[in-house]
Amino acid sequence: MKRLLCLAVGLCLLVSGCVTPARDTVFQASTIDALLAGVYDGDMSCRCLLKHGDFGIGTFDRLDGEMVLLDGNMYQIKADGKVYEPDPSVKTPFATICQFNADRGIPIKTGSDYETIENLINEYAPNQNLFYAIKITGQFRSMKTRSVLGQQKPYPPLKEVTSNQPEFNMKSIFGTIVGFRCPPYVKGINVPGYHLHFISSDRTQGGHVLSFEIADGKCEIDVLNQYFLTLPANTKEFAETDLSRDRSKELKDAERR
Amino acid sequence: MKRLLCLAVGLCLLVSGCVTPARDTVFQASTIDALLAGVYDGDMSCRCLLKHGDFGIGTFDRLDGEMVLLDGNMYQIKADGKVYEPDPSVKTPFATICQFNADRGIPIKTGSDYETIENLINEYAPNQNLFYAIKITGQFRSMKTRSVLGQQKPYPPLKEVTSNQPEFNMKSIFGTIVGFRCPPYVKGINVPGYHLHFISSDRTQGGHVLSFEIADGKCEIDVLNQYFLTLPANTKEFAETDLSRDRSKELKDAERR
Repeated sequence: MKRLLCLAVGLCLLVSGCVTPARDTVFQASTIDALLAGVYDGDMSCRCLLKHGDFGIGTFDRLDGEMVLLDGNMYQIKADGKVYEPDPSVKTPFATICQFNADRGIPIKTGSDYETIENLINEYAPNQNLFYAIKITGQFRSMKTRSVLGQQKPYPPLKEVTSNQPEFNMKSIFGTIVGFRCPPYVKGINVPGYHLHFISSDRTQGGHVLSFEIADGKCEIDVLNQYFLTLPANTKEFAETDLSRDRSKELKDAERR
Repeated sequence: MKRLLCLAVGLCLLVSGCVTPARDTVFQASTIDALLAGVYDGDMSCRCLLKHGDFGIGTFDRLDGEMVLLDGNMYQIKADGKVYEPDPSVKTPFATICQFNADRGIPIKTGSDYETIENLINEYAPNQNLFYAIKITGQFRSMKTRSVLGQQKPYPPLKEVTSNQPEFNMKSIFGTIVGFRCPPYVKGINVPGYHLHFISSDRTQGGHVLSFEIADGKCEIDVLNQYFLTLPANTKEFAETDLSRDRSKELKDAERR
């Protein structure tokens, strides 16, 4: 009978498919345009976010640093350039994650920079209308990142915050790039094209990637054809933000590549 | 022991929350811009779609009519104006559905038309940044709908098909309007604003709503703060469609209100 019980529960978990994160699914909290508009109060806790994946990027309550989620571990790269492990109760106002399962590896040439890597991935993943999680592990000759400073109310728009962003220049560093390539039609919701963050192997440095040059490394991609968006249902600031405006220019300024 | 087994399975189903459709979640198959571009080959069967909700709208393989999903029953209003119940194996190239649970009712005045209803719902549901399912049941003094004709390859774009759409004028008819109000930022993915279909109470008439005037009825809305999009992962036509173009004008022409 005990065996039957285990079997029933196991089967049930298997059929439901939802106790573990769904495969090939992007999970996103709130929208990039809400963040651009200054909706920095977190709505979802890291604890809750982590139920939906083990890999991804985002930011934290009050825009307090850059998020890297790698192998199920959450890192917070703050404006002081240091890496923290946030408490599971810390909330996020914007995050994009997935359960990373590499579909394919892409060989990388020494000396490749951001643009070279973009072109390379575009060649191996020509379908621009799906989502891709991107993981690049290796040694980087150079890595330039930025972070953002936790804000106080009234919150300024993101492009104002990033105009004074602290930037970090690393040399000959081991680590992992974590990010996504999103289809063009997510404009207003997420970042169309590439959006990458970085965390060093010793977990002491990282941030939002501005530029890099690879010494040696491997690139893996996970093709994602499902997209789950959860919106702040009861947040006044989100409800009152004008999300009909085209904020592409603001996004470009905020990404500052 | 049998009681323990039932309890375990029940608890398991409850925790997973995924054997029944998720609450407050829009489930969408493919994107409106892919449909505008002529990607009419269905990718998901009605059988599979029905696992994700009991209420919604869409179209069918080869653009063969308008879809109404109401109380878990699927109706296909073809270009001949007649209503069919499609086989569960029939596929859809675009659909938007949910598990309808009314959050509130909105009193409707006699003589209300499409614009009056839009303004009324906007008043009761001022948060433009969430999704809303809309159900209006009653008697309509007039109801003007259209349907679309199943296409042959090579498929013409949607605005060409709808420029010759058959339209249906109904008078003093009982039935239900089924549809959604989507936030502005879904531009390119779904229809921003209102998108409504109709099915008569006797299930003999319906279509994509162009205009109406209500004699007497009730309006219910379901606030949806989660959005799940599934994309055709292995469809050449979807992969090769340029979804970076702004097709707002085409959408307006295709909706033809």
